[in-house]
Amino acid sequence: MPRRLRTVAALALAMMLFPAIAYALDGRVDGRPVSEVRVVVDTMWTTMAGFLVFLMQAGFAMVEGGFTRAKNVVNIMMKNIGDFSMASLGFWILGFGIMFGSGNAFLGTTGFFVLPDTGDLYPPLGTTSVPTLTAWFFQLMFCATAATIVSGAMAERTKFVSFLIFSFFVSLVFYPMVGHWIWGGGWLSALGMQDFAGATVVHSTGGWFALAGVIVLGPRLGKYDELGRPQALPGHNLMLATLGALILWFGWFGFNTGSIMGARVSDMALIAANTSLAAAASAAGATVTAWVMFSKPDLTMTLNGALAGLVAITGACAFVEPWAAILFFGFMPGVVVVLSVLAFDWIQIDDPVGAISVHGVSGALGTVLLGLFHVESGLFYGGGISLLWAQVVGVVSVFAFCMVSGLVLFNVIKSVVGLRVSPEGEIAGLDATEHGNDGYPEFGIPDAVFQERRPQSGS
Amino acid sequence: MPRRLRTVAALALAMMLFPAIAYALDGRVDGRPVSEVRVVVDTMWTTMAGFLVFLMQAGFAMVEGGFTRAKNVVNIMMKNIGDFSMASLGFWILGFGIMFGSGNAFLGTTGFFVLPDTGDLYPPLGTTSVPTLTAWFFQLMFCATAATIVSGAMAERTKFVSFLIFSFFVSLVFYPMVGHWIWGGGWLSALGMQDFAGATVVHSTGGWFALAGVIVLGPRLGKYDELGRPQALPGHNLMLATLGALILWFGWFGFNTGSIMGARVSDMALIAANTSLAAAASAAGATVTAWVMFSKPDLTMTLNGALAGLVAITGACAFVEPWAAILFFGFMPGVVVVLSVLAFDWIQIDDPVGAISVHGVSGALGTVLLGLFHVESGLFYGGGISLLWAQVVGVVSVFAFCMVSGLVLFNVIKSVVGLRVSPEGEIAGLDATEHGNDGYPEFGIPDAVFQERRPQSGS
Amino acid sequence: MPRRLRTVAALALAMMLFPAIAYALDGRVDGRPVSEVRVVVDTMWTTMAGFLVFLMQAGFAMVEGGFTRAKNVVNIMMKNIGDFSMASLGFWILGFGIMFGSGNAFLGTTGFFVLPDTGDLYPPLGTTSVPTLTAWFFQLMFCATAATIVSGAMAERTKFVSFLIFSFFVSLVFYPMVGHWIWGGGWLSALGMQDFAGATVVHSTGGWFALAGVIVLGPRLGKYDELGRPQALPGHNLMLATLGALILWFGWFGFNTGSIMGARVSDMALIAANTSLAAAASAAGATVTAWVMFSKPDLTMTLNGALAGLVAITGACAFVEPWAAILFFGFMPGVVVVLSVLAFDWIQIDDPVGAISVHGVSGALGTVLLGLFHVESGLFYGGGISLLWAQVVGVVSVFAFCMVSGLVLFNVIKSVVGLRVSPEGEIAGLDATEHGNDGYPEFGIPDAVFQERRPQSGS
Repeated sequence: MPRRLRTVAALALAMMLFPAIAYALDGRVDGRPVSEVRVVVDTMWTTMAGFLVFLMQAGFAMVEGGFTRAKNVVNIMMKNIGDFSMASLGFWILGFGIMFGSGNAFLGTTGFFVLPDTGDLYPPLGTTSVPTLTAWFFQLMFCATAATIVSGAMAERTKFVSFLIFSFFVSLVFYPMVGHWIWGGGWLSALGMQDFAGATVVHSTGGWFALAGVIVLGPRLGKYDELGRPQALPGHNLMLATLGALILWFGWFGFNTGSIMGARVSDMALIAANTSLAAAASAAGATVTAWVMFSKPDLTMTLNGALAGLVAITGACAFVEPWAAILFFGFMPGVVVVLSVLAFDWIQIDDPVGAISVHGVSGALGTVLLGLFHVESGLFYGGGISLLWAQVVGVVSVFAFCMVSGLVLFNVIKSVVGLRVSPEGEIAGLDATEHGNDGYPEFGIPDAVFQERRPQSGS
Repeated sequence: MPRRLRTVAALALAMMLFPAIAYALDGRVDGRPVSEVRVVVDTMWTTMAGFLVFLMQAGFAMVEGGFTRAKNVVNIMMKNIGDFSMASLGFWILGFGIMFGSGNAFLGTTGFFVLPDTGDLYPPLGTTSVPTLTAWFFQLMFCATAATIVSGAMAERTKFVSFLIFSFFVSLVFYPMVGHWIWGGGWLSALGMQDFAGATVVHSTGGWFALAGVIVLGPRLGKYDELGRPQALPGHNLMLATLGALILWFGWFGFNTGSIMGARVSDMALIAANTSLAAAASAAGATVTAWVMFSKPDLTMTLNGALAGLVAITGACAFVEPWAAILFFGFMPGVVVVLSVLAFDWIQIDDPVGAISVHGVSGALGTVLLGLFHVESGLFYGGGISLLWAQVVGVVSVFAFCMVSGLVLFNVIKSVVGLRVSPEGEIAGLDATEHGNDGYPEFGIPDAVFQERRPQSGS
Repeated sequence: MPRRLRTVAALALAMMLFPAIAYALDGRVDGRPVSEVRVVVDTMWTTMAGFLVFLMQAGFAMVEGGFTRAKNVVNIMMKNIGDFSMASLGFWILGFGIMFGSGNAFLGTTGFFVLPDTGDLYPPLGTTSVPTLTAWFFQLMFCATAATIVSGAMAERTKFVSFLIFSFFVSLVFYPMVGHWIWGGGWLSALGMQDFAGATVVHSTGGWFALAGVIVLGPRLGKYDELGRPQALPGHNLMLATLGALILWFGWFGFNTGSIMGARVSDMALIAANTSLAAAASAAGATVTAWVMFSKPDLTMTLNGALAGLVAITGACAFVEPWAAILFFGFMPGVVVVLSVLAFDWIQIDDPVGAISVHGVSGALGTVLLGLFHVESGLFYGGGISLLWAQVVGVVSVFAFCMVSGLVLFNVIKSVVGLRVSPEGEIAGLDATEHGNDGYPEFGIPDAVFQERRPQSGS
């Protein structure tokens, strides 16, 4: 045994005994020894990042609530709490196992009902050192994000119970399947597709399910006149919508920097910078585009612009240079999202908050662009066509899968419990119809109808 | 000296000299050498968790403001800032010493006026490696939480100055005494009571003081009709109440995962997962309960449901399995909180935001249930009756102590400076009466009375 | 080679080979080897702190929006997004290089267009171990804070495009120059001036530019009657203003504890405690002052009081004792800010949110007081007059520089594109005039004029 090797061996032994180095010698986590500083800092970073991603639920609630009408605000809030509950349950029961369990190219089949010591059941998590429960916790927030994206697009006319059922099944099976393909060792992963923090896995999946939902649901009453021209149904609180967008932006820093499920110096630096630059540039891109098209800069477009950049950079944030983040994952999605919102409006896809454009379209855009700008394997960096091909195949496949699954799922829900409230209920507002709550009982909103008086916590 | 020991000793010495391992060789903190990575990561985690718990002040302000009427919103905001100021002062002067100082079974008597180098005065903090000021900072946030819980229950009729006096004394003496009993080496700790992050120490204490306050104060004008039937006085802004609940949920992750005042891998993983699962399940439990009872799912109940689960899991989060978190520290408190809100309303305990049920009742429930589900010493895990007994004794003792102290304290305040505003002031709204501010001068709230015009910052 | 030294050398070598210690052996960052735990924890802390500082953008938006009138809320939101976009661009192109690049006593001249591997170009960053991109990310948030401070003071009458131009140039050149003097090795740094987290660099700079802007702009229509007496134009949403102040407080913990751009145990402890104590005490100071002067405690003054304490402690948080934080960096700024707000109002400097007093005056106060209370070199700690002298010189110089630059810059903007909207536009509200958005279309705000119907994301 050479001298240097012996020193290293002695050191390794010493570390097991000496708590100052061997930091967390508190046994084993998921069958792996917890004897490394690495595990501690990785778990800290992933956990804290998960907290930030959780706060995105508040961001979505504020954006969706602010962009819709006051008579439906309670319903939006309920949906945002409800889908998190459903996602927690669904992703715990089957979802996490389908996504990260070992299985075949299409879905995982091990590791359901996540337990503290089920570590070995999830081979794709071998690249992270964090405990399985930490990985579950972090990934749950992503699952819940995918579910909650749909809530805004289907706002102001969907039955509450039907949305809960959708949330449960999308978290139980559909989102995890897409995740398995790309992050869980499935067929798109084998093809070489790259999607760092989920531009496709999370955002496009949410966006395309939203599109399927809106198609099955139809537009809100009064959204299109008899000639099919879109009518403005303005959001009721743009100050809170802005707060929501800024909270989303904040949470997104956790979303992107946490996605490696560890604390890597170079990644934390590059990802944080790219994320911020892309969002800033896309807010500018959307502002300029709206300014040119409408002659005035429009807040709702600026907010969706910022979000579109955040979506576009999500899959690429660890792989591209800052200038590309600014121009192609920032300014460009900002321009595209404005055009996309107008286009969907024109073809009578009524998406009150722009979720399909922000998450579906911009997620697809960012995923494909990564095939060009990846610093190691992108087309423009001499990497050839193979990454770009994988990205395109991934984007198209996920679109097709989500549209087909979504159309089937929403039609099944529609025929079993119904998907849409009655026209009377929609006119009166979902707060009164579905919940018997009034979001703003003192503000004299003209069409708020508060029908009942019964005990409330806040009363 | 055996060879292995010598290696360890050399290693320890080397660590002192070599900055890459001996990370923070910047002297001593509280008389202990700062030569360990452990101290760095523990301090990072505890400090960041403390920041998150601070943000719960914003969550409480939004929940309490949203659940009450617009004419009192400024007063609620003032109370939430004011009680943090009072808590900061009181917990710095005496509170921290009473809670963690060495003393007797009932209170600590050392370490008042916390200084950067007073480390040795707090024996119960020997289990954490963080500096005393970090421990003070983190624990201050808990103290302020206990104080602010009371603000919501006593909303819409309490004199501002009286609430400040209460906040000061509860932070100076009463909360720290309960804390000393359970966390500071006092008699309940000696009895074996377990309360990981303060279901009883923080939440029940706050809840029972709130109950005492409401008893001394009486219900709001118009809350009960001449036959004693409760009348709805709906909260004025349910969108902001929802934001508040989600911010609380976010801050609670810091509250629970930070409570070990260090970064332990297994604990971070289990606590984060249990906290999230319990909240999601209790939101579901309250939603279902309200749906069954009122035929519609009620947002105010869902929000209080989520909070009730967070309270219930607080004391147990590091000690129970996820399935128990879902069913017994989640779904069950969600059901119970709805029944509790209705019950208190029925017996004319007028708690505008449901704080007594959410924090008092659910904290007691979670504390007792831990006696059953603790994976090491719970009754259902073969641990016998002793933990359950300690939990019950703790819950009952803290209830009795807080009720007696609270009734005395509020009655003293009542007789010295008065506790309640005049009926005219209550009808006009506390914003006009107590502060001369109008929370929403442009929204045409009918009963807002803005009596004065004078300089304001926001004017 | 002595035995001990040999052990250390062996250890160092071993660490390079043994991943459990040599944590992040993933190559080099900015030309430095990433082989130390230190780099990992420093980067974690600085990155997470940067996230918190980003969230202050939401805090500023809520405070500024809440303290102004509903007809201008969209414009305030747009400015808060827009200045972040401009700051991101300007601070990336030139700002960071001017601030931290090597150059002369007045500005840096290297390191423009920040790239992942430009580490050696920034000598003043030698004291931190974090990657350049992390330093850029963290410092960007400070630059954006300085820019956004101005937005509130100039609210309700400034042209949107003009504010964007100002934001860009202040982030490109002027803020970085002040930063270079004090943090980048410039002449004030050479003089011995201390400003830990930027009471002067960030807050006074922002405050004095705001003062220059208000002087060039003039007061809002209706703010002063024909006799020059101030009229109240009350803020439209004090609940959201409070939320904003609490979010700022939360973000400020990152602002102050992150400013060392590393995770140092003693600093994290002292800074967090001092920051919290100062804010709590200054909220109390302002509350008491307003209570005495107006006979009622005023929420707007309390909120600005809390912020004034946060500003005052910013430069001193790592250098003073808690009692000084309470009394002199807390209670005193709380008193001063109330008097300052009234004084500026009296001399017809119309600052709708009190930004000049909160950031300019309180920043200067805290910077000067540090010359007295610095525990190592303050006058009251036997350190002589030299630090105090440096602080006074710094405060006066920065005031003069910002006023001159600001007056020139705003006058140039005024003559080229105009600085102020038309009187008709100001009366109608900037939301209608500048953006064609209505912030609250359903709340029946009397003077809201929504002139156009066109596609919106939230519609």
